[in-house]
Amino acid sequence: MAGSTWGTLFTMTTWGESHGKGLGVVVDGCPAGLALGEEDIQRYLDRRKPGQSRFATKRRERDEVEILSGVFEGRTTGTPISMIVRNTDQRSHDYDEIKNLYRPGHADYTFDAKYGFRDYRGGGRTSGRETIGRVAAGAVAAKLLESLGIRVTAYTRSVGAIRISPERFEPEERYRNRLCMPDSHAALEAEAYLEQLMAKGDSAGGVVECVIDGLPAGIGEPVFEKLDARLAHALMSIGAVKGVEIGDGFGAAQAKGSVNNDCFRKAADGSSVKESNHAGGILGGISDGSQVVVRAAFKPTPSISQVQRTINRQGEVVEMEIKGRHDPIIAPRAVVVVEAMTAFTTADVLLWSMTSRLDRVREFFCGRDGGR
Amino acid sequence: MAGSTWGTLFTMTTWGESHGKGLGVVVDGCPAGLALGEEDIQRYLDRRKPGQSRFATKRRERDEVEILSGVFEGRTTGTPISMIVRNTDQRSHDYDEIKNLYRPGHADYTFDAKYGFRDYRGGGRTSGRETIGRVAAGAVAAKLLESLGIRVTAYTRSVGAIRISPERFEPEERYRNRLCMPDSHAALEAEAYLEQLMAKGDSAGGVVECVIDGLPAGIGEPVFEKLDARLAHALMSIGAVKGVEIGDGFGAAQAKGSVNNDCFRKAADGSSVKESNHAGGILGGISDGSQVVVRAAFKPTPSISQVQRTINRQGEVVEMEIKGRHDPIIAPRAVVVVEAMTAFTTADVLLWSMTSRLDRVREFFCGRDGGR
Amino acid sequence: MAGSTWGTLFTMTTWGESHGKGLGVVVDGCPAGLALGEEDIQRYLDRRKPGQSRFATKRRERDEVEILSGVFEGRTTGTPISMIVRNTDQRSHDYDEIKNLYRPGHADYTFDAKYGFRDYRGGGRTSGRETIGRVAAGAVAAKLLESLGIRVTAYTRSVGAIRISPERFEPEERYRNRLCMPDSHAALEAEAYLEQLMAKGDSAGGVVECVIDGLPAGIGEPVFEKLDARLAHALMSIGAVKGVEIGDGFGAAQAKGSVNNDCFRKAADGSSVKESNHAGGILGGISDGSQVVVRAAFKPTPSISQVQRTINRQGEVVEMEIKGRHDPIIAPRAVVVVEAMTAFTTADVLLWSMTSRLDRVREFFCGRDGGR
Amino acid sequence: MAGSTWGTLFTMTTWGESHGKGLGVVVDGCPAGLALGEEDIQRYLDRRKPGQSRFATKRRERDEVEILSGVFEGRTTGTPISMIVRNTDQRSHDYDEIKNLYRPGHADYTFDAKYGFRDYRGGGRTSGRETIGRVAAGAVAAKLLESLGIRVTAYTRSVGAIRISPERFEPEERYRNRLCMPDSHAALEAEAYLEQLMAKGDSAGGVVECVIDGLPAGIGEPVFEKLDARLAHALMSIGAVKGVEIGDGFGAAQAKGSVNNDCFRKAADGSSVKESNHAGGILGGISDGSQVVVRAAFKPTPSISQVQRTINRQGEVVEMEIKGRHDPIIAPRAVVVVEAMTAFTTADVLLWSMTSRLDRVREFFCGRDGGR
Repeated sequence: MAGSTWGTLFTMTTWGESHGKGLGVVVDGCPAGLALGEEDIQRYLDRRKPGQSRFATKRRERDEVEILSGVFEGRTTGTPISMIVRNTDQRSHDYDEIKNLYRPGHADYTFDAKYGFRDYRGGGRTSGRETIGRVAAGAVAAKLLESLGIRVTAYTRSVGAIRISPERFEPEERYRNRLCMPDSHAALEAEAYLEQLMAKGDSAGGVVECVIDGLPAGIGEPVFEKLDARLAHALMSIGAVKGVEIGDGFGAAQAKGSVNNDCFRKAADGSSVKESNHAGGILGGISDGSQVVVRAAFKPTPSISQVQRTINRQGEVVEMEIKGRHDPIIAPRAVVVVEAMTAFTTADVLLWSMTSRLDRVREFFCGRDGGR
Repeated sequence: MAGSTWGTLFTMTTWGESHGKGLGVVVDGCPAGLALGEEDIQRYLDRRKPGQSRFATKRRERDEVEILSGVFEGRTTGTPISMIVRNTDQRSHDYDEIKNLYRPGHADYTFDAKYGFRDYRGGGRTSGRETIGRVAAGAVAAKLLESLGIRVTAYTRSVGAIRISPERFEPEERYRNRLCMPDSHAALEAEAYLEQLMAKGDSAGGVVECVIDGLPAGIGEPVFEKLDARLAHALMSIGAVKGVEIGDGFGAAQAKGSVNNDCFRKAADGSSVKESNHAGGILGGISDGSQVVVRAAFKPTPSISQVQRTINRQGEVVEMEIKGRHDPIIAPRAVVVVEAMTAFTTADVLLWSMTSRLDRVREFFCGRDGGR
Repeated sequence: MAGSTWGTLFTMTTWGESHGKGLGVVVDGCPAGLALGEEDIQRYLDRRKPGQSRFATKRRERDEVEILSGVFEGRTTGTPISMIVRNTDQRSHDYDEIKNLYRPGHADYTFDAKYGFRDYRGGGRTSGRETIGRVAAGAVAAKLLESLGIRVTAYTRSVGAIRISPERFEPEERYRNRLCMPDSHAALEAEAYLEQLMAKGDSAGGVVECVIDGLPAGIGEPVFEKLDARLAHALMSIGAVKGVEIGDGFGAAQAKGSVNNDCFRKAADGSSVKESNHAGGILGGISDGSQVVVRAAFKPTPSISQVQRTINRQGEVVEMEIKGRHDPIIAPRAVVVVEAMTAFTTADVLLWSMTSRLDRVREFFCGRDGGR
Repeated sequence: MAGSTWGTLFTMTTWGESHGKGLGVVVDGCPAGLALGEEDIQRYLDRRKPGQSRFATKRRERDEVEILSGVFEGRTTGTPISMIVRNTDQRSHDYDEIKNLYRPGHADYTFDAKYGFRDYRGGGRTSGRETIGRVAAGAVAAKLLESLGIRVTAYTRSVGAIRISPERFEPEERYRNRLCMPDSHAALEAEAYLEQLMAKGDSAGGVVECVIDGLPAGIGEPVFEKLDARLAHALMSIGAVKGVEIGDGFGAAQAKGSVNNDCFRKAADGSSVKESNHAGGILGGISDGSQVVVRAAFKPTPSISQVQRTINRQGEVVEMEIKGRHDPIIAPRAVVVVEAMTAFTTADVLLWSMTSRLDRVREFFCGRDGGR
């Protein structure tokens, strides 16, 4: 599959550039009968919208989504759901300065190396606006999962070295502070840290954590389509992500087996549960019924206000300074993107898992009594 | 694609269980004309073979590969290359003890949840022997890459908290010590640490690092098939991997932009190079011509010799002790697996990238002068 | 891949319903640097536009395409090309009559059986308007192929039992008559036949033939991705197609080997050519350098003006008469759709074939001298 | 996916050459719990085995299958099912004569054009033996379908111009005569015709028909993964197939709508049925609950005993005569291959269709009452 499509049975195909006519996505393979309206999508898009905090760029427009197909009388029909967000802020910027430069930390150079030229306006396809399609698709996935009792939640886990504390964890707090941190204390610290960096024209990295609640055991396809492998693929495909972890992740590489192993026990309701969750809800690439925990490491915003040295397309060394305001951190605005990619990937693997057992396939087609 | 196939144009389909008749792989899409013999594959398989150190299980047999198809008169023909390794150590073990138990840290429970039952002999499909197919396929990929001047090299970066030091880095050392660490000092420390753990019946985690040298700039497909996203998928699909990083990885999430950005400069030969490589050779999901650096975090061996509490298929709590010798660490034996998956994934994405530019496609089909 | 995406490296993802907001397609994997404008697409769309003959429905609007992404300064950038055609004829029709009926020969019943309900307005996703996305994508493919010296041409071969004659074959004639038949004599006969049918409220089937000129030998992937297998898939996926042939097709099943075999000889320019072309340019699923010849059989328009007996959603037998004007034949309007699907599929398989030989891969990456 | 893998959720990956070490297939995505043994596979392979009639080549060996993985205690485990048939007839034939020739009607020339060289022994990968993997995989699919009440049956419909008659149709007869024709009268006629051809060293084409009984309505994914489109792809991928039809096929292209439309009525059991089946059980690419009917046209055996003119690799014109005995017709031996490909493709699309409706997905995961 060409590179802009993600998923096996439940797929998204995204398109669009930062300063082209718009951006969008085609979601295919959504089961028919899901109640869906533009407000379901808009709610997610609004979470990534610019201008909502001092740490995010102030772009004028609101990104308004239009559903173009696949929904009839308020429900999905099973056919492709096409969604579009028009770009409205298309003033003719002056890109002369950057169009011949290879900005450090950006994909300018690699796009030229690959394609011979690039749409340099606002980063083109590599702009953060590329995630609009992902988020719109993720909103559909989240609604689908919700109808099956599954909930996906992401938040900022750390800003630079400042990390949320398990003791102070308040889920709802993530909607209250501008950094999406579910720990008001850490959020204050992080804000102060970012103020400092901004004063120097610098930027910070951060980690986004995402949890899946309510996922039944048995989801994920060995060997190459393990749930964690697909989640890693999905999250690493987000711009600026440089690392992905499941459960204890890199911490597990420093742990001992006697500590890292999660013992099983019987829950009150008779189901099998783990006493701890170092595995992050996935064993052998298959969900184990515990909460799934994934993390993505975001590098610092490459656009900084300091003078940097680089080369231009002609290979000449130049000094450059990126004009305009830039987010001092990517992670908080990417929280909804991580949530979207996790939800979408989970929904796809979940649907896939319906075919794992013959007894359940037979019940599906032939009824509970096995007759026809 | 069902879960045992990996790749787009260049694919591997693996099969086999630990105590079934054998394990193997079908490699498809390999360009015709590559010199290939069983010795090329055997060399890689021997690197994962058991019994080569005190820290690895002593299984009797050597895993001998047989090429069944796709090679004619010493060269690949373009048709599928099927390879098989027969299992020879098929004594009837006594699995009564474990067949009804859910071993902590293993996929026993999740396989049962997914499929209703499982081949419990030696871990079945979830055994480390599953990687035989990956390694055989990776050997083909490595030979293919080598013929294009690209080299993939993996080694153990850390054992528990003991990490190799950049100052003491000796590439060849990794073949000399049993832990595959390219730092003899760290290797000694790590061996002592593992001895301690073994004495207590415990195990350790570790990190494997892999570098790609000679990869041209421009490889990787935005948006979802980024080179790093595919590498993350490939490495996370290896059993026991809980985290994947590119370049500075999670470290980048704690860095400042002014430090993390790699500035471009002109090399002596006129090409564009980066002054540093925090990005690990990938920008915007596309190779930038620098060395590609990836890392995979392996959890500690879940099979430990201590008494553990778990439940059986009937949901009863039981105490269990896993019999027999077990590797106290997975990472060193997985070095060749990481190398194989990295090589295979890189070769696939590399072939894909031949279609990126019309001028090069036209030259390919119509010749340099553009005529036909 | 969910069902609305076609292709491996070069893909189209179509979306849209007859009476929704619009229809469109996302083309991904197009090599960068292809000169492309809306006029290139519009030319193809105009060929399928309604109202151009007495044998085609008179829908008011012209289908105007807008390119939303993937083209910058007149050239493709390598990123997804999103194209949209807005529906303008959205008067609120009265569908009460048909929304509960299962029209004979239509997919009303099967959509309900599959999805539980359907967008019944104008046929929804099963309308002939679904092909808009295919044609727009095919226009991109045709331009790409043209730049490589490859030309795809389709025309009506037969209307009912009236077939074009090889002796009277005039390529340009297909643009002159309303039935797209490259034989003016047959076209006149066919028109008379259709007039007769229309008088009785009946409809006719027909066959569309498509040829590919200039395709080099060696294109197509054994075993399952043979060029002919992919073309068969592509053409059979067009609504109303019930049969596909390559070369002599079903005629070959009645032939003798001594006649059906095409002997090879040396052409004046030194290349190998076949003396005849019963094979239709494909041997063993791989192009042989001759003209590729494919055919698709279209069933008669199922919407006829006669009274038909059917059942409604409640299972009651009803008599129905489909109101409005309907094309008495599908084939001529589908000529451009066959051309589009053939061009797109060929371009995809062509790009794929760049990886077949190591010597050519090495030349691509390492240059003609093999050095780097 | 590289070209030797077929299917989306349920896949087969075939490998092997005529005179290599063996041939085989890896079947992945089979639901766990299907009773399966080598005898299930062998029964299908025996139906394609040589030497069973005067019209088929007499190869010494029986093709004996070995299941290498994916089955435990007599049932499929959900992991890949690897199957192998060793080649035993590996005497060193003298291929000097043909290794440099391009045999008319064979893929010698196109393989050389594509790959630069080929395994010429017995046709290599293009030999009829390539179908061994398909048939073994089809046997698994047939068993799976059978457990769901679905039956796939193929037979020879015509030999040259001699066609079975609906009036004389006897299903069981196909197992009794050597041509697999379910009409003893037509079989006798066909045998006489083939005797005539053989006397002249010539060969005949034929048509194989395949029907699917018991397939529920609603199977098939619009737009590009229609059931008929996938069947067309599957059948056209079989060597020597030059045409594929569904239902009335090319006949529908000569029919009138008033005749070709199948009217719906209510069956005694309350279900919706069609009064006729011109559509061949598929409407809009989705099964309609009627019998599915597909046909594949096979060209005459290209290996004939007459002198033919062709060229060699050096481009010199030569006269050649293919030595040895050759089947005078391909179709009867391909009956089981058509059945296998139809069964496999149907099973794959069937599993896929489990995700079409949210209410059924919800029931699957949350139970009949919708609670969790």
